[in-house]
Amino acid sequence: MHPVDYNHTILLSHDELTRRQERVRSLMKADASHPDALLITDYANIFYLTGRVFAGQIYLPLEGEMICFVRRPVDLEGDGTVRIRKPEEMAQTIGLNAPARLGLELDITAWSAVKRLSAVFPEAEIINASPIMRMARAVKTDLEIEMVRRSGVAHEEVYSRIPRLYSEGMTDLQLQVEIERESRLKGCLGMFRISGTSMETFMGSLIAGDNADAPSPYDFAMGGAGLDPSLPVGANDSTILPGNTVMVDLNGNFTGYMTDMSRVYSLGEISELARKAHQCSIDIHRMIAKAAVPGTPAKALYEMAMELVKERGLENYYMGHRQQAGFIGHGVGIEINELPVIAPRSRDIIERNNVIALEPKFVIPHTGPVGIENTYRVTDTGLECLTNSPEEIISLI
Amino acid sequence: MHPVDYNHTILLSHDELTRRQERVRSLMKADASHPDALLITDYANIFYLTGRVFAGQIYLPLEGEMICFVRRPVDLEGDGTVRIRKPEEMAQTIGLNAPARLGLELDITAWSAVKRLSAVFPEAEIINASPIMRMARAVKTDLEIEMVRRSGVAHEEVYSRIPRLYSEGMTDLQLQVEIERESRLKGCLGMFRISGTSMETFMGSLIAGDNADAPSPYDFAMGGAGLDPSLPVGANDSTILPGNTVMVDLNGNFTGYMTDMSRVYSLGEISELARKAHQCSIDIHRMIAKAAVPGTPAKALYEMAMELVKERGLENYYMGHRQQAGFIGHGVGIEINELPVIAPRSRDIIERNNVIALEPKFVIPHTGPVGIENTYRVTDTGLECLTNSPEEIISLI
Repeated sequence: MHPVDYNHTILLSHDELTRRQERVRSLMKADASHPDALLITDYANIFYLTGRVFAGQIYLPLEGEMICFVRRPVDLEGDGTVRIRKPEEMAQTIGLNAPARLGLELDITAWSAVKRLSAVFPEAEIINASPIMRMARAVKTDLEIEMVRRSGVAHEEVYSRIPRLYSEGMTDLQLQVEIERESRLKGCLGMFRISGTSMETFMGSLIAGDNADAPSPYDFAMGGAGLDPSLPVGANDSTILPGNTVMVDLNGNFTGYMTDMSRVYSLGEISELARKAHQCSIDIHRMIAKAAVPGTPAKALYEMAMELVKERGLENYYMGHRQQAGFIGHGVGIEINELPVIAPRSRDIIERNNVIALEPKFVIPHTGPVGIENTYRVTDTGLECLTNSPEEIISLI
Repeated sequence: MHPVDYNHTILLSHDELTRRQERVRSLMKADASHPDALLITDYANIFYLTGRVFAGQIYLPLEGEMICFVRRPVDLEGDGTVRIRKPEEMAQTIGLNAPARLGLELDITAWSAVKRLSAVFPEAEIINASPIMRMARAVKTDLEIEMVRRSGVAHEEVYSRIPRLYSEGMTDLQLQVEIERESRLKGCLGMFRISGTSMETFMGSLIAGDNADAPSPYDFAMGGAGLDPSLPVGANDSTILPGNTVMVDLNGNFTGYMTDMSRVYSLGEISELARKAHQCSIDIHRMIAKAAVPGTPAKALYEMAMELVKERGLENYYMGHRQQAGFIGHGVGIEINELPVIAPRSRDIIERNNVIALEPKFVIPHTGPVGIENTYRVTDTGLECLTNSPEEIISLI
């Protein structure tokens, strides 16, 4: 998109910047707390508003120019860029225009940091900017969708090589490492950007056989014991056995905007139950791809999927077996856990240009995980798939 | 250390658990805010107090038993484990023993989460537990040092293979990916645990040639443009050129406890200035290894190093060139940015069994980064090195 050494703070075109600012401002106006300005610290939100990550703050007033207060790197410049060494220096610039109601990212900024930032604006009432920024980013611009689309193409290329990366007797970790290498050489950035603290992972998850049934502390759809109790999720370095399935759900971040895609491989023949559950996942995708038009409540999509799962008698395996996840889909973009959330008590309404990862999955005892995950764009007539790898279970032998 | 599928919440021996709790409690007693109990949410601190990561809270009173409130995974059990679905359920268990002064991790827990947790204990005065936990973890137990030591051995093995992983014409990224693969196959967990939000990285950094002089937004010793403006640090996929140096500073997390180690490789002959600066870094290591006995102020170590750098006329290249880092060492363990900090205004005092990564480094224009980083344990007579790879610059051709 942009050369990385460009020293202008704003890497977005004027039009793109305006589009994003206007989206945030329209949500500020609509918000019951009526902020006069937002003060943004979070890297993901800074990336959204400038096209790059810097350390510092962005001040976005409802009216007037956005100001980028840059602490690091030291070489950024351009309109609206003010160099600071500490947040207290912002007061000099904003001065008499200090807002009456200032939005900070209260859901993700540490308590001490909120205290320090609010002390810079002692007269301001502090309100929560997190929901506004989450809602803004839930509806992607055309450029953002293009960035997701490019990640999807690279992601598909990596997955197409998976059957060639497997060799007999491999453990789940060994297979994962070969996919990681392939992915990184294709430009995968590696980092998984996650909002908040509900998840930790390295490069995503590859789970095979019985390990799929190990409950994890994190808010992912699937678990896995992991390699160590300090990071208990995903591959556990056990040999992939005949009759096992392997679910690959690895990092699709090639552009700063991620795709999320899972595919299933097997070692030879797998159980009838596993094949049936995999087909059920594909059928859920087809059903929701038609149903998820703008205006649809996200929870209706969850319920529709659950109905099909029950019709087929698969509810004991759905979204896990010993521990079940409470959602089957989520927004994705700069971060892996954006809005909307497809869950039973979600209040989100599907909107045009949401980008949604849908992952109805099953854990089949003694076989492993099945089901697919795709990333979709919401269009006026339903979902457009941005992760077009073959969906059937592919045998590695 | 422990089988990962063990379903007892506490994976530490009784003695080890007692040792860590008593350390935290002695700091609680010494703290001016006098907490009656701490409520711990952070994964790193939960790992410290139990030997595993779970989602939930640990309640550690000054007197009485520690309670693990586990939200996920669903299969944990054992003495002191209470299953909860939401933090509000803690009130039932703690009930009448509610603390008058409750410590929460205010420096790292989001404002909204602090609000929610403090509402569970409406009578309690909330104080900041972050400094207490940081100070507790700064002094390692023998078991913790053993875990760091094991990471160091694996880290050394990976680095010993670097010259064989290079092939002519490689970019920095390509070399990094081959090291990542080697490291992961040796059991590297990949994840870099970092406290707070001052840093982001994937698997650490490999920087070569002029890219070393690209300022980054993060609080690392070195910069690098990175592959994308969404993660502007480290390798930028440029070809490693004759006369360039390459600094490898990649992930040493093999046990949940990390070593931090940097080594420098070159493509053939490099400038006299670069060789001189590299030797200065080694000399600083030798000097500080003797000087850093328990009781030494951390800032005295910084000053001592700076004096040597000035004596040799190298201050323009020290800790970066266009952008200079403000520290030359940091505690390391579960996270990469622990106490003590070796910086000009540090108030930390070196203690026995601190584990410290020391990284006096230089950026030499038109050559690249030089200098080494080692992880040390503080003994009564100075530093014991836990990362024993050869320290000289090794030519890759």
